[in-house]
Parts: sequence; structure tokens; C-alpha cells
Amino acid sequence: MSLLLAVDLLGVFCFALSGCLLAASRRFDVFGSFLLGLLTGLGGGIIRDVILDGFVPTAFDRPVYLLAPLIATVVVRLGWLTPGRFRRTLLLFDAGGLALFCVSGTLIALRHGLNPVGATLMGVTTVIGGGLLRDIVAREVPQVVRVDGGLYAAPATVGAALVATSATLGLNPHLRVGPGELLVIALVFGIRGLALRHDWQLPHAGPSAT
Amino acid sequence: MSLLLAVDLLGVFCFALSGCLLAASRRFDVFGSFLLGLLTGLGGGIIRDVILDGFVPTAFDRPVYLLAPLIATVVVRLGWLTPGRFRRTLLLFDAGGLALFCVSGTLIALRHGLNPVGATLMGVTTVIGGGLLRDIVAREVPQVVRVDGGLYAAPATVGAALVATSATLGLNPHLRVGPGELLVIALVFGIRGLALRHDWQLPHAGPSAT
Amino acid sequence: MSLLLAVDLLGVFCFALSGCLLAASRRFDVFGSFLLGLLTGLGGGIIRDVILDGFVPTAFDRPVYLLAPLIATVVVRLGWLTPGRFRRTLLLFDAGGLALFCVSGTLIALRHGLNPVGATLMGVTTVIGGGLLRDIVAREVPQVVRVDGGLYAAPATVGAALVATSATLGLNPHLRVGPGELLVIALVFGIRGLALRHDWQLPHAGPSAT
Repeated sequence: MSLLLAVDLLGVFCFALSGCLLAASRRFDVFGSFLLGLLTGLGGGIIRDVILDGFVPTAFDRPVYLLAPLIATVVVRLGWLTPGRFRRTLLLFDAGGLALFCVSGTLIALRHGLNPVGATLMGVTTVIGGGLLRDIVAREVPQVVRVDGGLYAAPATVGAALVATSATLGLNPHLRVGPGELLVIALVFGIRGLALRHDWQLPHAGPSAT
Repeated sequence: MSLLLAVDLLGVFCFALSGCLLAASRRFDVFGSFLLGLLTGLGGGIIRDVILDGFVPTAFDRPVYLLAPLIATVVVRLGWLTPGRFRRTLLLFDAGGLALFCVSGTLIALRHGLNPVGATLMGVTTVIGGGLLRDIVAREVPQVVRVDGGLYAAPATVGAALVATSATLGLNPHLRVGPGELLVIALVFGIRGLALRHDWQLPHAGPSAT
Repeated sequence: MSLLLAVDLLGVFCFALSGCLLAASRRFDVFGSFLLGLLTGLGGGIIRDVILDGFVPTAFDRPVYLLAPLIATVVVRLGWLTPGRFRRTLLLFDAGGLALFCVSGTLIALRHGLNPVGATLMGVTTVIGGGLLRDIVAREVPQVVRVDGGLYAAPATVGAALVATSATLGLNPHLRVGPGELLVIALVFGIRGLALRHDWQLPHAGPSAT
């Protein structure tokens, strides 16, 4: 198994767990939990693969991808993740998925021949897609536009841009997950964690005078 | 016209009716009703065809598919479906679409060469897709994750898995709608109906102690 | 630059501005504003290109498309669009995007060989897609189904049908934006504007007796 596949599957598992935790806090049944985990874990990658065009999305082609939401459903159902602290645990795994997917999504886009700007956008799309579907189906304010939750898409964009830039500079000729990419994962996870803890915010979208 | 096309079109009509009924209960105008019927009836199939890749989705390729939401809009507008009992009628047609689509969606996926697990997932995606779009646009709690509405995705999964298994066992070499497939439609419709009437529920997604 | 590209880019900019204005009224941060602008401006076209199949969506292929949401974010942030009147300005630019996209979306679909009915539907899909995503993410009642906002999808459908019909009649052999198409843009924009001002409404979706 390549390291890229491992990073991607771990990202799927992290996001699937965040979906199953949200399902539990909303008192969904186990099947709804599996579906929300599946949508959250695989949604971003399916959107990416559908946009990249020319092949059936990996999630439908390789049944192994379905194991992640299955395991996540069981883990949450059995209460292995400290019930009563759903929200904090959800954000932790969501951050993990964010860091992993901005690397795997960008690399997969580059492997399919996208230009660096398009590949960065695709990495961010992969990160955002699943969580957005999760929050829309569960009728939450999407994490990606919440103003009280610290930076979200910004660290993902920085990570994706770093991966795309290093590939464009020829530092990653085989478009694999190497030491540099693992560093990006740690960096993005760290920034997201600090942003959550200290509630870092960017300026407001409207005129500053308001 | 093949039986598969008939089953698929009938499923589109059922889901389109559910969309138009929801539109009427939300006091949309006739055009909004047509759009919600179209999105609900054709949404699942379009998502399926886009994921399957390699061809323009049937809904865009064959204008006959647009007749279903058109007729549904007229039927609801003319009040042929007992006004005042929108919710119950909506759930009835939604159940019909569920039963028909889990067969047609899975068979279409198998015809495009998907593995049995992927085809089952695709059948469930076809079933869930349109209703999910309907409920998101109309700002309802999605039927598929409602906890007070009985089993929904579970019977669809059982039906899709039965169709995929029988095909894998070589019982349906031409991937057509035969007596076995019609039986699956009846079975899924029956389970969904009983689940609605008796409010069957699966265990909760979170730890049982909670 | 062809006139079709200009019309399409102007439509992207109009919709992106409507997204950024909504983001500002919801007090998103600048990055959320850029994302909502991007989703609104490019969403409809990405959905169209994904459905048309066989190529990577233009938005990912040509980085110039990202300039529109970027400029829109800056314009709204700097307060160049009369703060305090967000709603009215939003509706104005939304109407502009509507008029421009029903022409560019339909022409692009025809260029990819769709039949006139499918191309009309695709034009309407392009128009509706971005705004629908915008309103879903920002948890608004989608503009396209609002009953108190005047006609929305109806003028888009008329415009798309006019473009498809004139092409079918051989009046637009090269599928370009000509004087007739510019007239359609003005017509659709005018109808939408009048519908907003006078709150034109279609009949209700349910039985008239209710």
C-alpha cells in the first residue's frame, strides 16, 4: 500500500468519525450514522474524482474505502470516544481529516494533470466537500463558514498550495507523499489546532467601518 | 420500452410527486413545484450517471424524463391527490420511488461494470440522492436521517444488495428486470410501509448507556 | 477573448458578488467570503461541466476564473457597494448573473452536442446551481423557490429556451453570442427586474381551492 493511499484512507477515517459523532449527538440511528460517516468521509473525494473526470470515483471502485465509515460507526456506537464530549472530539478528527486531505487531494489532482492553481483548488475542495455535506445534511452551520470556530479553509489552502508549489518546483517529481508532505500535514494540523484553541479570526467580509 | 426503463420512469414519477407535494405544502408557486419535482425525481439518477462517468446523464439526453415532473406538477396543482393529507401521500410516493430506484439504480450500475459492492452503494445513492436534494432545498430534516420516520435507507440497502447478489450469482445474466427484481420492489416497498406504520427503529448511533 | 467567454466571466463575477455580499451580511470572514463568492460564481458552471462530461470543468482548468471571486471579495471588503443595502444590491447582481448565465450555459451545452430540450435544462441548471449552493451554505431560503421574491427560474427558462430555439432554427450556426443573444440577456434581466419590483407571482403549486 502506497503512503498516499494510507494518508487518504486515514483522512477518510477521520472525517467519517466526525460524521458519526455528529450523528450520535443528533441521536440518529446506527444506519444514519453510517450514512453520515460515509458522506463525510467519502464525499470530498467523490466530488474531486467526479470533477477530475475520466474514471469511476475510487470510493465506488475500491470497497476497502467503505471500511472507514463502518469502523467509525462501530467505534462511536460502542462509546470508545468519551461520550459527552462529542463536539471537541468531532473538531479534533475534523482537523485531522483537513490536514490529511489537503495533501492527498492536491497530489491526486496533480497526478491527473491539473495545473498548480487548479490542483490547489481541488485539494481545498476535497477538504471542504465532505464536511460541508455533513453539516448541510445535519442542518448545522457549516464548519467552513463558522465565524466562531477559528480559521478553517485558510490552513487547508496554505497546505494545498505548499504541496502544489513543491511539485511545480520539481521537489516531488513522482508526486508521492514524502517527508515534505508529512511536514505539511503536521503544519496544517497544528495551525488548525491553534486556531481552534485561540479562536483566531480573519478580518470581516464587509467594510471595516461597519 | 424495456421493463428497466419503465421501472426507472415510474420511480422518477413517484419521487417527482413527492417533491411537488412538498412544494404545495410549502406554498411554492407552480414553477418552484416543477423544479422541486424535477430535482427530486431526476436528482438521484443524475448523481448516479455523473459518478458512473463516460456519458451524459439520461435525464439530459432523453427529454421524455422531463414529462414525469411536468405531469406531477399538474396532478398536484389540480388537487387530484387529496389536499390536506400531503404528508401521508408524500411518504407513500416516496416509498414507491425508494423501492423502484434501488432496483433500477443497482442494475444500471452493474451494466456499467461496477463491482457488486459499488453497485449496491450506487443503488442506495440513487434512492437517497433525489429525496436528500428535495429536503435540503425545502429546508426539511432529510427523510433519510429522520429518527421518527421508521427505517429508510436500510430497506433500500437490502433491496440493492439482493439485486447485486443475484446478478453476481449469475441468476440475472442480462441484468434485466425479471420476476426476482419485481419481487424485490414489492419487498422493499412492503418493509418501508411497515416501518412507517409501526415506526420501526434501529439502535441509536451513540453509546447505548447514554 | 470571445464574446461567449466575456459573457460567462461577467456572469461569474455577478454571482460571485452576490455571494460575497451575503457573506458580509452574515458576518463571515474574508476567506469565507471568497469561498462563498467562488461557490456562487463557479458552482453552476462546474455542475454544468461535470454533467456534460468528458473534460475538466473550465473553472479548474483556467485559473482566470478564480479572479472573479477574488475581485468580488475585495470590492465588498472595501465597502464599494453601499453597505447597509446588501440585500438590494445582492438581488441586482444575482439578476445580472441569471441573465448572463442562461445564455452562456445554454450555448455551452449546445456546443457539446446536447439536444435543444437538454440544453435549455442545462442553461437553467447553470443559472440555478450557484445561487442554490450559496443559499444552502448560508442557510437562506433558496432564491429560486422563494415565493415572496418574484419570478426567478421562469425568466431564466424563457431565455434559455429562446437561445436553444434560435440555434435549432439555424439562426445561430456557430453558437456564438450575437445581437440576438445580447437581446435575450437584456430581456431576461428586464423581466427579472420587473418581477422583483412588482413582486410578480405565478399560481400556487397546490389546488387552487386551498
